[in-house]
Order: sequence, then structure tokens, then C-alpha cells
Amino acid sequence: MAPQLIRAGFSPSLNWEVIAKKSQDHRDATILSVQPPIPDISALPLDSSLVPKSLLTAEETSLTETDPASLVSKLASEELSAVQVTNAFRRRAGLAQKLVNCITELLPTALERAAFLDDYLKTNGKPIGPLHGLPISVKEHINMKGLTCNAGFVAWHDRVPDRNAHILDILLDAGAILYARTTQPQTLMHIETDSNFYGVTVNPFNRNLSAGGSSGGEGALVGLRGSCLGIGTDIGGSIRSPAANNGVYGLRPTSYRLPMEGLSATMLGQEQIVPVIGPITTSLAGVKLFMKTLIDAKPWIREPSLLPLPWRTEPQFPTLADGSKKLKIAIMWDDGVVQPHPPVTRALRVVADKLSAVEGVTLVDWTPYKHDWAWTIISSLYFCDGGSEEAAAIEASGEPWRPLSKFILKETGNVKKLGIRDMWDWTMKRDEYRAEYSKLWGNVDVILCPVAPWAAPLHDTAKYWCYTSQWNLLDYPALVAPVTKVDLAVDVVEQTYVPKNEKDKYCYDLCKWRMRAVGIDRYADIDKDNPENYANAPVSLQLVGRRYEDEKVIEAMEYIQEKIGSPFAKFY
Amino acid sequence: MAPQLIRAGFSPSLNWEVIAKKSQDHRDATILSVQPPIPDISALPLDSSLVPKSLLTAEETSLTETDPASLVSKLASEELSAVQVTNAFRRRAGLAQKLVNCITELLPTALERAAFLDDYLKTNGKPIGPLHGLPISVKEHINMKGLTCNAGFVAWHDRVPDRNAHILDILLDAGAILYARTTQPQTLMHIETDSNFYGVTVNPFNRNLSAGGSSGGEGALVGLRGSCLGIGTDIGGSIRSPAANNGVYGLRPTSYRLPMEGLSATMLGQEQIVPVIGPITTSLAGVKLFMKTLIDAKPWIREPSLLPLPWRTEPQFPTLADGSKKLKIAIMWDDGVVQPHPPVTRALRVVADKLSAVEGVTLVDWTPYKHDWAWTIISSLYFCDGGSEEAAAIEASGEPWRPLSKFILKETGNVKKLGIRDMWDWTMKRDEYRAEYSKLWGNVDVILCPVAPWAAPLHDTAKYWCYTSQWNLLDYPALVAPVTKVDLAVDVVEQTYVPKNEKDKYCYDLCKWRMRAVGIDRYADIDKDNPENYANAPVSLQLVGRRYEDEKVIEAMEYIQEKIGSPFAKFY
Repeated sequence: MAPQLIRAGFSPSLNWEVIAKKSQDHRDATILSVQPPIPDISALPLDSSLVPKSLLTAEETSLTETDPASLVSKLASEELSAVQVTNAFRRRAGLAQKLVNCITELLPTALERAAFLDDYLKTNGKPIGPLHGLPISVKEHINMKGLTCNAGFVAWHDRVPDRNAHILDILLDAGAILYARTTQPQTLMHIETDSNFYGVTVNPFNRNLSAGGSSGGEGALVGLRGSCLGIGTDIGGSIRSPAANNGVYGLRPTSYRLPMEGLSATMLGQEQIVPVIGPITTSLAGVKLFMKTLIDAKPWIREPSLLPLPWRTEPQFPTLADGSKKLKIAIMWDDGVVQPHPPVTRALRVVADKLSAVEGVTLVDWTPYKHDWAWTIISSLYFCDGGSEEAAAIEASGEPWRPLSKFILKETGNVKKLGIRDMWDWTMKRDEYRAEYSKLWGNVDVILCPVAPWAAPLHDTAKYWCYTSQWNLLDYPALVAPVTKVDLAVDVVEQTYVPKNEKDKYCYDLCKWRMRAVGIDRYADIDKDNPENYANAPVSLQLVGRRYEDEKVIEAMEYIQEKIGSPFAKFY
Repeated sequence: MAPQLIRAGFSPSLNWEVIAKKSQDHRDATILSVQPPIPDISALPLDSSLVPKSLLTAEETSLTETDPASLVSKLASEELSAVQVTNAFRRRAGLAQKLVNCITELLPTALERAAFLDDYLKTNGKPIGPLHGLPISVKEHINMKGLTCNAGFVAWHDRVPDRNAHILDILLDAGAILYARTTQPQTLMHIETDSNFYGVTVNPFNRNLSAGGSSGGEGALVGLRGSCLGIGTDIGGSIRSPAANNGVYGLRPTSYRLPMEGLSATMLGQEQIVPVIGPITTSLAGVKLFMKTLIDAKPWIREPSLLPLPWRTEPQFPTLADGSKKLKIAIMWDDGVVQPHPPVTRALRVVADKLSAVEGVTLVDWTPYKHDWAWTIISSLYFCDGGSEEAAAIEASGEPWRPLSKFILKETGNVKKLGIRDMWDWTMKRDEYRAEYSKLWGNVDVILCPVAPWAAPLHDTAKYWCYTSQWNLLDYPALVAPVTKVDLAVDVVEQTYVPKNEKDKYCYDLCKWRMRAVGIDRYADIDKDNPENYANAPVSLQLVGRRYEDEKVIEAMEYIQEKIGSPFAKFY
């Protein structure tokens, strides 16, 4: 383990539980400072999404349910003030914390900055930048100057970066207001959100389900509209899983388009599987606003690993004579390994049926190519050091291994300490697979597919990553959009299904499996036949393009939504 | 050592000298097939550049001294036939082999293909592609289906790829004729060209000097006009050193713009320091033709590691009201470690003086930033496996270590077998250095600098790579152009110079050092005070841009040449 990865500051005499308690107390204190105060909620309902409206003012509800693109427009025209908007989000974020446990701290400087921006606009007669006054929430491991960045490891509780992550500097220059930081799991390598600092982040629509992860704090916060735009990171699904599980938009951009400098994480310097940063937001317009603002700032000047590829605003699809777009969509019903749960297949079916009637759109089925082999490659490359940095970072404080940390590091069978030549060999297999996959496209424009086998997973069950990690391995842009909700009346398990393999059986059994009623870090087995296991869970779909076709994927989703409308859901 | 890197086919009972002899015999046989036959040259002159004209027809001389852009235009209009052009280059290449030892084989199929293309053009009334009928030479380790690709290792003498490198498929589709393959050093990791297969490739202008390397066969062949356009590869200077030493143009493009799939080399899968492919050619127009043809073919479809960045044909510099371009050029006189030899500094001085009078051009001095540290980083990352693949590939046949293989693998002090974490640490140092360097640019457009401390190096002395490897570490596009020749009357060594450090002393001593008169693989010490040591050597300069600004660098060089004309030399 390289010495710089565990700071000398950790004192072994400190109990990890003491540190965790201290972190929670700090978080709670920052929420206590919100005015007017946020009431405590004594009985947490299964579905939290109904609560905010009952406890916030009508104005606060309306502001926080406005999408980011409309907000910046209203802020720029002084129809709204930054102070007013920021405080509404502070209040709803504080409430979200009490409901779903998604916050690590609210930032006390946010209102001051909002006042400065309001003043700036009054004085100068124009906004300071394209995000003037927009509150943005940030996943904890994205460095903020002077604040702890623990990446989910208790032993890292006292790491304090001396400067902001590059992305935050750009967003601040653009006029954003950073007001909330959000939860993440131990190791950052779960697609749920469970740490020894804060326990479990639960799903706003059904607390027995996960908020997804690793950007699960962002997902749940945006899902509850305690934020309209947050920053997540993704190396295997960590933006898309929480976006999907919480019924919001999330984009995993192609690598090297957005700034990555200044993240706290293990394995820094690793570049076989490149993590990316991206937005989790309440609208497609929010995705575009985020991408365009960052790329227009030419981040490649400060961070030369990035590509000087401008954000393309011109249409990426040809328009036909009748004004419709020519668009070939391949639908991947199943990845050939694990069959999706009934609500996921239903969402795909409904969208496909409607798309088949849209002028200009051609639909074909996508035949998945060796997705299980893709998982072998990516899970062999995730931890080339055999996971020793993660293990050391967990064990340095004595904190327990969370179940999904154990899963990804100890149970996939693919995590091994590699020699340099082994790593090069896996890298070549990766490149060969990428080249083989590239041949499948033909003239297909985008692939529409599930985000996971489930709508949202039962806690501690999200052990099948491949519907998202597939596109990380291929480095394809992948956009998640909410489609519908689980409907217990129609999403019925096919009782006679015979699973194709062990993974398929594992995921199939989850449809009917025992589930756990979860408070924050409190588990109890409950009735496995409870019909409400997946009740209310958002069902989302994923749209995937070729490498660097981020703009094309977004434009395709806009067109699909424009043409078919419902079932694409807004939930608020 | 991974098993796939040494083919089972090598029989230890085969003596390496026998294999080398067989390879030379094969080469000679392919040259013997050229008609009319190429006469033997009994006494090899110091300066070979004068010979071709005396032994070729006037038409052959004229054709082979035409630049590639003009050739494709004349071929497309049927002013020239492909057969006529190809045979002229075959004859001059065969002659070049006898003079400077730069060829591994001539391809017997070239004339047949030329005839096919002539026929195609007659039948279809249009060329088959943008390179219709253009003969192109190829460095040996770029895979050609059915031919051996040994990468300079005798043990690899029987490696035969079953398909072409991606780049060759594109060039063939564009109408190119592959007619000659060229020499490279043992390991490919020299910036000279010396192997146990073929011995030493010498400089066309002074056989006591090196042709550079590792694409030294290309450099010498193009330098003698036995080719007008060849393909080289570069991970530390291997395109630019031979381009410079032989007085021709060479571009090291930014990584991931040109296809790399299908190269025979050690350490495949390594991506910390990315090798690139690029042109060595007789004109700037040739550089552009090569780049544009390859990138217009959208190589990123077959090879998804490449960037979908179109070749930019629009001007990269603003034009002022008076029609001149606004251009800020920084001149790096010295890299802060090793002072260039007198002719190199003179070339820079003459160009700078002339540029200072050009409207629109601003000149500043470039202050090099820790170039010695840059070398530590890149030479630590070149062989993360401690050089074990190179050592195994050399030793598998019992061939001796060439002196510069020993240098780069055993004498820099930086080649160590790294663990995964060590490699990540060096990768982070690389990225930090890149970010620091990026800050130095300000509004500078391009950097004009030496290509090496020497004009062309004495054999076996090129142990200072940093004037080229610097830009590999930073992944900057770097273009070499010929400027002048050594002038023994004015390029006088500063006798009182006190070297700054050991490397500086080593290079300074080379100005006056003992030198060796070299036949092919025959060395003899000669008078160290011989004033002709560096006689006639071309002196070239390098123009460097920011990452991905390949087009801008080329446009800047075009403008510079247009504005100042001489001293930029053509040599023929």
C-alpha cells in the first residue's frame, strides 16, 4: 500500500464507531442550522416521496420541483433569487436526509454565496455565468477544499484536500452554489449505498429498496427533489444505478470528456477501466446544461488528459422531409445472461410498442455478445492490485466489511493481484472485446436496454452489475431515463421460468426472495411473500451510443420522449 | 514472459547468424528481381545522396524526387502510371539498400498491384481512392499478412501475422502500393537503427553518422528518395529522429488519432506511454495527405480506442487584416539539461532571426520545465516489467545485445520491475507533470526547438532522447522539418564551454569525440579530430503543439516556411 493513501493522521486509538458518530453529529448539526427548522418525522413511511409536499411551503415545493434549466433561466432574469432557491433546496435536502439518509453535510456557506450572486446580478445586470445561482449537490469523494473527503473509508475520516476538484472550480466559475454533500458506500464499489459512517441510504419510493449506488446519496436526494442537479461518478454503474432506482436522469459520459482531477479514491493512477464523472438530475435539459457548461469551459487546458472535443449542439441525426428524424434503435431485451424482472421487461415492451409507430424510427433487436465475458474482463481489471488498497483502507480503522464490499472484492472470483504482464494481457482482452463489439453496430444508432435486472434492488442484493458495467468496459455513453413504476397488479413473476445459469437464478429468485425492512442500518427479515416488496419502485431504461456519441444519445432520448410521451414518468 | 510473445516455432538449434544470413539473402533476392537491375557499388562514398542521380534514368530521378501530393495528383490524372512510378521507387529503393542498408525486403506484388490500379483507372475513369497508385514504404514491425514481422528480435524471425495492420488496410483501400519494408533496431527502442538481422543503417549524407531510429530504415530510404512516404512509429523519438537525421519531414501525431492495431512489438497492452504511428515523407504536403487520408477513413469504427476527431481542414490561426496570421512562437534554445551542438543552435538562430521580421509573428523564449524529471518519468514507465520481455526476446535466440539495447534497458538506472501500485504512482507523476506543463503555455501557439543535441549522431552514441521523448511523455504533436546542413566552417565547437552536468558533458564531448567509420556492421576507430565527422549532416528542427493540435502544428510550419523560405532545405 502506497504511504500516501492512508494519512498519518489516523489514530488507532480512535474507535471507528466514535468517528462515525462524530460524522453523523456533524451532519445533523449542519441540518439543524436550516431555517425555518425542519420538523422531525417520527414514523418513516414506506414511500417518502409524498412527505415533502406536506411539510414544505407551496413555494418551496414548486421551486424544488422545477428543473435546472428552467431554474437558471428564472435566476438569470431575476424572476427568482438565488437565496430563495438555495434555501428551498436546503430545506428539502434536510428533509430528505431525515427520510432516506442521503446527506453527509449541508454547506453553511451556500446562503452567503447565494446572497453574493443575487447582489452580483443586481450590480452588474447580468448573471455571473451559465449556472448563476443554481444549487448543486456533490458526492462526498469529490474534493472540496478544507472539507473531509473519506471515499467511504472510516480510516480516511481526516483527509482534507487543499483545493477543490477541477469540476467544482468550473461549476463555481459558472455561478453554481454548492450546498449539499451526499452519501456513498464503503469502497465506492457497490451499486448500493451502505457505509459504516452513515449506514444505508434508502429508496425514496420504498424504503425497503436500495437507492442504488455508489452515487446513491445523489440519487435519493435528486429522487426526492432535495436537489435538481448533482454530481456522481461511475465505473460500473454508479451514476446510472441510483438515477434509475430513484426515477431521475443520469448520464455516464464517455471517458475523458469531463474533468476528473481531484477525486478521493483508492487506486489513483489506474487507467485500465477509467471512472467518469457525470450528472444525476431531474431532466434531460439538466443533463445537457451540465455537459455543455463543463465542456464549454475547455477543461482540457487545466487537465490535459481530457479531449478537446467541443460539446456538439448541431443535430446528430438527419431530418427527413416530413420533419421526423431517421433513427435506428436496437432493443436489448436481455443480456443473454440474466433475464430482467417483469417491470423492466414491461417498460421496454411499452416503449418498443410505441416506438414502432413513430415515423423515421427503425427498431431491431440487439443480440448481446458475450456479456458474461465482458464481466470477467472488467472485474479482473477493477482491482489489479488484488484489492489490497481497499482492504488496507477498510482495515486501517477496524471498521467491519460491508456485505457488498465483501461481494465485489472477495466473491466474484476475479479479483487477483496481477503482475504487469497479466495486467497488459487483460488490457489486450479488453481491447479485443471492444473491437469485436464495435463490429456489431452496423447502422444502429442507439441501443435501448435495461439498467439492471431489477427496478430497484432489495438491500444488499445488487450483485449483478452487468447491465451497466458492460458499457463501462466498452466506454460507451449511457443515459438513464425514468419510464414508469412497478405495478404489482401487472408485473407478475413468471412462476415456471427456468433460469439459464446461477446468476440468472440469483436474480430470478430476487423477484420472490425474502426481503428486509430497513431502517437506517437496522435489518430484520420480513415476510418473503409481502406483495409490497417492490411497490412503487421507479422503472428506468438506458440508452447507449457508440464511444464519444454522448450528444447523439441525448438527442435520441429527447426525440423518443417527444414522440411517444408517456410512459416516461416525472413522478412529481 | 507471456507465452504468446515467443512463438513455439523458434528452434534453439538454429544459430542466430544463420537466421540473419537467411533474412539478408531473402532481402537481396527481392532486390535482384528489380528490372533493370541495380548495379553494385564497389566503393561506398561518404555522402550517398549524390549517387542515385548518376545511376538512375533522368525520369526515374525526377519521379522519385517528386513529393507525394504531386504524385497522387499526376497519377489520378493519368499523367503518370502507377507502374512507372512504382518501378522508379523500386529501383531507387534497391539502390538505397546498397548505399545505406535500409531495406528488409522489396515486395514482389507491388508491380502487379500497380498494373491493376492503372487498369482500374482506365476502366473506371476515376482513381480508386485518394492515394491511387502511390508507393508507400513500411517499417518492418507493422504487420503485413503472410510476411514475417520480427520487431528486431532474431527469435521472432518466424512470426507471420494472418492479417494486415489496420493502417495498411486503410492505405490499400485508398489506393496505395506497398512496395518496400524497412529496417529497425533490436528491441525497437533505440533512436538509431542497428540489429543482428541486418547490421547498421547509415546516414545517406554521411555514412559515419546514424540514420536515426527506430524508424531509421524509413528515414534513410526517404532521405535518399527511395521512398516519398513511409510509415514509422514513435514512442520516444522514433519517427522524428530519423526524419531529422535524414533531412525529411516526420510527424509524431497525438495518440489515438491514427490506427495502431496490428503492430509486432513487446509489451502489447501497455498504455502508460502510448506509441504512435506517423509519416516520414519528403514534404509537408505528404504529412497532410497521410493524416487526412487515414482520419477521413474513420479508423475509430474498427479500432474503438481511437478518437472520432475529424481531420480539421479549416484554418487554425486567425488571419489579420493584412492577410498575415497571428502566431505566437516560443523558442526553446536548450532543454535546461543538455546544450545542443553548434549547427542545431545555428539553425534555431537563423530561423528565429528571420521570424522576428515576420508580420503577425510574436517570438518568446520557452523556459523548459524539469525536462530531466520528465525523462525519469518516461524511462521509468517504458518498461514496467523491468524489461523482461525485451531481455527474453533477445536471449531466446542467443543473439548478442546491441550496445543501445544495453543502454536503454540496463544503463539508464530507471528500468525496474514495478508492482501495480508503483506503476500507478508513476502514472500519477506523469499526469501531474502533464498538468504542470500545461500551465506554461499561456497564449503560446507552438514551440520551436531542437530534435536532438546533435545534427545526426555518431553511431552508437544516441543516448540522449529527451529532445524528442519529452513530447511523448506530454503526448504533444511534434513535427520535424529539415532546415539546413552542418557547415564545418561556421559550426565550431565552443572550446571553453563548461558542461552543466554529466549528460551535458557526454553530449558536448560528442562534438569532438573519437568517431567510427562504419561500413555495414564494421567499426573502426578513426581520427577524433577529423573535421568531417559531422560533414553534410542535415540539421532539422521540431515544432510542437498542445495535445491534439496536430493540424495547428502543420499549419504553423507551412506559414513559417512560406514566410521565411530559406534556410529550409530540400537537399534534392
